[in-house]
Amino acid sequence: MRPDNRAREAMRSLRFTRNYTAHAEGSVLVEFGDTKVLCNASVEESVPRFLKGKNQGWITAEYGMLPRSTHSRMGREAARGKQSGRTQEIQRLIGRSLRAAVDLKALGEFTITVDCDVIQADGGTRTAAISGACVALQDAIWWLMENKKLKVNPLKQMIAAISVGVVNGQSVCDLEYVEDSAADTDMNVVMAEDGRMIEVQGTAEGEPFSHEELLELLGLAKGGIEQIIEAQKLALAESK
Amino acid sequence: MRPDNRAREAMRSLRFTRNYTAHAEGSVLVEFGDTKVLCNASVEESVPRFLKGKNQGWITAEYGMLPRSTHSRMGREAARGKQSGRTQEIQRLIGRSLRAAVDLKALGEFTITVDCDVIQADGGTRTAAISGACVALQDAIWWLMENKKLKVNPLKQMIAAISVGVVNGQSVCDLEYVEDSAADTDMNVVMAEDGRMIEVQGTAEGEPFSHEELLELLGLAKGGIEQIIEAQKLALAESK
Amino acid sequence: MRPDNRAREAMRSLRFTRNYTAHAEGSVLVEFGDTKVLCNASVEESVPRFLKGKNQGWITAEYGMLPRSTHSRMGREAARGKQSGRTQEIQRLIGRSLRAAVDLKALGEFTITVDCDVIQADGGTRTAAISGACVALQDAIWWLMENKKLKVNPLKQMIAAISVGVVNGQSVCDLEYVEDSAADTDMNVVMAEDGRMIEVQGTAEGEPFSHEELLELLGLAKGGIEQIIEAQKLALAESK
Amino acid sequence: MRPDNRAREAMRSLRFTRNYTAHAEGSVLVEFGDTKVLCNASVEESVPRFLKGKNQGWITAEYGMLPRSTHSRMGREAARGKQSGRTQEIQRLIGRSLRAAVDLKALGEFTITVDCDVIQADGGTRTAAISGACVALQDAIWWLMENKKLKVNPLKQMIAAISVGVVNGQSVCDLEYVEDSAADTDMNVVMAEDGRMIEVQGTAEGEPFSHEELLELLGLAKGGIEQIIEAQKLALAESK
Amino acid sequence: MRPDNRAREAMRSLRFTRNYTAHAEGSVLVEFGDTKVLCNASVEESVPRFLKGKNQGWITAEYGMLPRSTHSRMGREAARGKQSGRTQEIQRLIGRSLRAAVDLKALGEFTITVDCDVIQADGGTRTAAISGACVALQDAIWWLMENKKLKVNPLKQMIAAISVGVVNGQSVCDLEYVEDSAADTDMNVVMAEDGRMIEVQGTAEGEPFSHEELLELLGLAKGGIEQIIEAQKLALAESK
Amino acid sequence: MRPDNRAREAMRSLRFTRNYTAHAEGSVLVEFGDTKVLCNASVEESVPRFLKGKNQGWITAEYGMLPRSTHSRMGREAARGKQSGRTQEIQRLIGRSLRAAVDLKALGEFTITVDCDVIQADGGTRTAAISGACVALQDAIWWLMENKKLKVNPLKQMIAAISVGVVNGQSVCDLEYVEDSAADTDMNVVMAEDGRMIEVQGTAEGEPFSHEELLELLGLAKGGIEQIIEAQKLALAESK
Repeated sequence: MRPDNRAREAMRSLRFTRNYTAHAEGSVLVEFGDTKVLCNASVEESVPRFLKGKNQGWITAEYGMLPRSTHSRMGREAARGKQSGRTQEIQRLIGRSLRAAVDLKALGEFTITVDCDVIQADGGTRTAAISGACVALQDAIWWLMENKKLKVNPLKQMIAAISVGVVNGQSVCDLEYVEDSAADTDMNVVMAEDGRMIEVQGTAEGEPFSHEELLELLGLAKGGIEQIIEAQKLALAESK
Repeated sequence: MRPDNRAREAMRSLRFTRNYTAHAEGSVLVEFGDTKVLCNASVEESVPRFLKGKNQGWITAEYGMLPRSTHSRMGREAARGKQSGRTQEIQRLIGRSLRAAVDLKALGEFTITVDCDVIQADGGTRTAAISGACVALQDAIWWLMENKKLKVNPLKQMIAAISVGVVNGQSVCDLEYVEDSAADTDMNVVMAEDGRMIEVQGTAEGEPFSHEELLELLGLAKGGIEQIIEAQKLALAESK
Repeated sequence: MRPDNRAREAMRSLRFTRNYTAHAEGSVLVEFGDTKVLCNASVEESVPRFLKGKNQGWITAEYGMLPRSTHSRMGREAARGKQSGRTQEIQRLIGRSLRAAVDLKALGEFTITVDCDVIQADGGTRTAAISGACVALQDAIWWLMENKKLKVNPLKQMIAAISVGVVNGQSVCDLEYVEDSAADTDMNVVMAEDGRMIEVQGTAEGEPFSHEELLELLGLAKGGIEQIIEAQKLALAESK
Repeated sequence: MRPDNRAREAMRSLRFTRNYTAHAEGSVLVEFGDTKVLCNASVEESVPRFLKGKNQGWITAEYGMLPRSTHSRMGREAARGKQSGRTQEIQRLIGRSLRAAVDLKALGEFTITVDCDVIQADGGTRTAAISGACVALQDAIWWLMENKKLKVNPLKQMIAAISVGVVNGQSVCDLEYVEDSAADTDMNVVMAEDGRMIEVQGTAEGEPFSHEELLELLGLAKGGIEQIIEAQKLALAESK
Repeated sequence: MRPDNRAREAMRSLRFTRNYTAHAEGSVLVEFGDTKVLCNASVEESVPRFLKGKNQGWITAEYGMLPRSTHSRMGREAARGKQSGRTQEIQRLIGRSLRAAVDLKALGEFTITVDCDVIQADGGTRTAAISGACVALQDAIWWLMENKKLKVNPLKQMIAAISVGVVNGQSVCDLEYVEDSAADTDMNVVMAEDGRMIEVQGTAEGEPFSHEELLELLGLAKGGIEQIIEAQKLALAESK
Repeated sequence: MRPDNRAREAMRSLRFTRNYTAHAEGSVLVEFGDTKVLCNASVEESVPRFLKGKNQGWITAEYGMLPRSTHSRMGREAARGKQSGRTQEIQRLIGRSLRAAVDLKALGEFTITVDCDVIQADGGTRTAAISGACVALQDAIWWLMENKKLKVNPLKQMIAAISVGVVNGQSVCDLEYVEDSAADTDMNVVMAEDGRMIEVQGTAEGEPFSHEELLELLGLAKGGIEQIIEAQKLALAESK
């Protein structure tokens, strides 16, 4: 039995709040149950040095957790003077996923940086971050279009991400913290609107997993992501 | 004329939202107009090395700004690998102010760390942080008392902080960002409930200021802080 | 056509040279074609702080590239003062994979650190590193057994890793550098001797990939890993 | 009773030794009793990036303590790899204070950096540093004028700084170390020659302080600063 | 008696393997007995900032030890976030020595960086590194000449280095690790082909050393270096 | 001709001022002409971790230059966040030299740290530092004896250091900055009172140097060091 009697394939309640803060070109608070991540997309009229003169744009992401977003307080990365390997791994994943959703040539010489800061953590922060970041990215792109800096929308399709895993021998979708800690296998899937995959990261925490388990997890992920993309679209359909 | 025709001595709208996040022993979102700071107080059953065996507790604070809490995006301190001088100055001020409000002997061998993270900035983030941190601190202390770890409340009295300044030749209270950028003199005052001062920091940004101006600013600060402390107490009077 | 007319499912020439250096308890030079990684396993009679008193051992890994292991010289990480996100991601992956191969309770209170240093790079350094590290780990464990510090072999089964990908619309196994740079999809698979998976990391570099492509890549990976494990076992069958 | 029977309003012996070292454009050893700070002003014919093309100059300061300037040895900041929060706070204060004394437009595109290094500490190092730095700054400006790089003196007026505080219930001026450690309230005041204030920083170390105490401390500070400015002027009146 | 009954003036077996790795313009594995150092010379068509426009080239070196090149594992410098004082001292020595062998004006605006990475350590790693680096440097220079980027060979003469020392009261040449640990005096000598010296660094580890001992050590060094230079030349005489 | 018509073998004026600052157990300002280094010896009643329980003491040193001790301002190492390779090399040399002068067993479990801070630089700062540090060390040892913490003087004999070099084809003693910049060969010699050597570091800055030149430089160094040791003894003979 899952917490709150959730069904194996059920998502936690999903919420995307746009315009959550005032300054960012795109600002979204994404909630997957008790996991809350603030995704702020910032537009800059320049590109990193390695892209100068290549006539294309860039999308990048940074990730952080507020020190007390977690059950017990974690040290502040700014105070310790470096980002952990986990943080760097996650922000590289978010950036890579968002870039797969965008035609960088069509974006032109702009950089969009999406800051994903975890306000409250209850499992699945990286997948919530990717899902929220895509909405913030769309708002930032619309800001560019409204301000006549861009004519065509370079976002090819929405993307979203979900965590799935094997907990107590059962495949489940959208793990919360207590499930995540107990999972034998943990898989994060980033998928596009058309059902194709952008990233699959499956890890055996305890026992290795079989080909059949992998297929079952991918099936659950597909179902979850369809729900997330539907929620993203509903949020984006509201007037800003 | 001030923005929104605010009177010289008027505060922006004040809000203290307790229990803003789920895990911290005290969690308060403080809003001074469009300035929003999340203050999370974390309790730890130990003291720093320099206080071991001295039979007293410790209060400390950390401060950070989300990269896009500001008008244009600031570099993330965790990514740059160090906290700026400004950040360190502010978190030292917050910690020092909170310690002045607490009887550290009566606190016993606990450390309370208050993380003040700016979600949205519009001037006065450090004074909002101090004012919100004091409410979060009270909640964390009550948590200790409810959990029978502490018998007597070691908080001696509430403290709060306000920024005042001389803008266009006029002394004003609770500066927002556009006023702060234009101020000739900028002063932050931390005051206790009994009207006595804990910290006064006045800086001439342009011309030096006179004794008379100093007195006028102190008067404005006193009025503002009385309103803040009233709002703190109202918030704390609600059942948790 | 692949370089050297290699077949889609063919591996490059594989070599595991044991006892490559003199001091490490396990020392293996692994070669996947022109990719050469030195894997040194070091035994320490203690465990990290977070495992103290838990009656189990620990396996960890570090990864590095010699500055001129690559086509053009890369900055030395020690001189720049930090490990890149890529380096940290890879060494976390190696450590996690090796831990999945070992019964940490049966290992007892020893830490084995496997240093994987790339001497020459031509694609697939992380998968070569995992495959070589497992052989070095076995040698280090045998050293513990020969020295009567361990009675039972805690290695549950061999593990190995391979990179597969879609290059020019074709799924191929064991990518070398020129293929890797041109791949649309890139997947690293870590698998155990019994055919079950320990880690699957698939990334769309250009277009997203379909479920069918994923299955095809997994099939290629399985074939490649069987060959690697056979080569590992042959190498380990020789007297030291 | 104060050490050496000093009167409440009395300064320690003051000394400004110009041309203390050979290379700096302005070099002053300032002594407030046993507190000795070497202030070296260096002229550079350029401005920081953020001022490029703005047709003005810049004044900045750095502060450090020799490891054994203090009663017990402090760790060397260069060896620890970072400047403490206290150091950064002090050097920001010195720079800000000096800039308030200078017409940066009239300075032209020069940067003057004043290094304040504490040779021996006995309380009040930051206020001694500001007072000495202003003399070194004047010498550096005269050097620019003698070398025909500047026609008009951009120094608007002298500035100086003093620490005052409440020790054993008594307000006193120019605290030495034993008094500083025992102070209930500690205040640093930076004032210009015309009696107006540039910076006021008052901190309650123990009990909060009242409005009356604040006024009394400001009065003591004014008296002390007048003496310092007189001593600065006497020193500057000597031929170089 | 020395290990393996080596005579006082005898070198360990010497080997220089050119083209050890594939990408570097010069790549040499140097072996002094069980000490093995990989020296990779990389050519870059630019010079450091401080040489821009001065019409000359630059030679520099970096040094590192693989964590388990030594008897017990050393922490990885990249992970600790800084190079030790010893590492920096050695790489400065290697760079300085190589620059003394080259006419930098004749080199033109190229930078050659020689990375010296210790694969296995058994005493004398810095002197082996210098001796191997000079061979790698020659290969890199020949690469420049073959590629018509340079007409004249700027290498003035070969250089080599040896460690000598006083062990158990006896002067010996080319110390291995067990001797090095027991030495009273330790001296590293860098010498050119013409018998003149580039660097002499003698250190009393225990008792000071006399003028006579110094002379005796210099004599041993001269003999050893002649053998090394002969071995370098033999290696360079082979077709690449 | 040397500056000021100094003879080849002549030292600049030498001065050792004891008790230069108030807090250190030994405090010496050493002057070699215009080179001025403050050497403060600090006693601590403990030893570094690697010596715990070994029943011996430790001597160590740190070195720094005030930013404007030099002709043009150098960046502050504390601000840049690390000590340069040159700084580390020098402080390792100073520490090693002082340890050679002391019977560490006889010192007992004390650590003496000598901070050498360059107030004004005109060539030879490291050799002045060693020479001054030895006097400060003696004063710190006497402090230990006066305070009954030590019965026997563990200083075996005085040590001193000098720079010698070949300038314009001529061997000279005690180089000042203009000579140092022009030297072909630069040698630092650390010698004990009995004429034996502790450290010899000779470097060819331009052309390699011959055996004869080396001998000539050693002769000059010996003469210079005898004068320095005489001056040290005179200074130490004065009552404190």
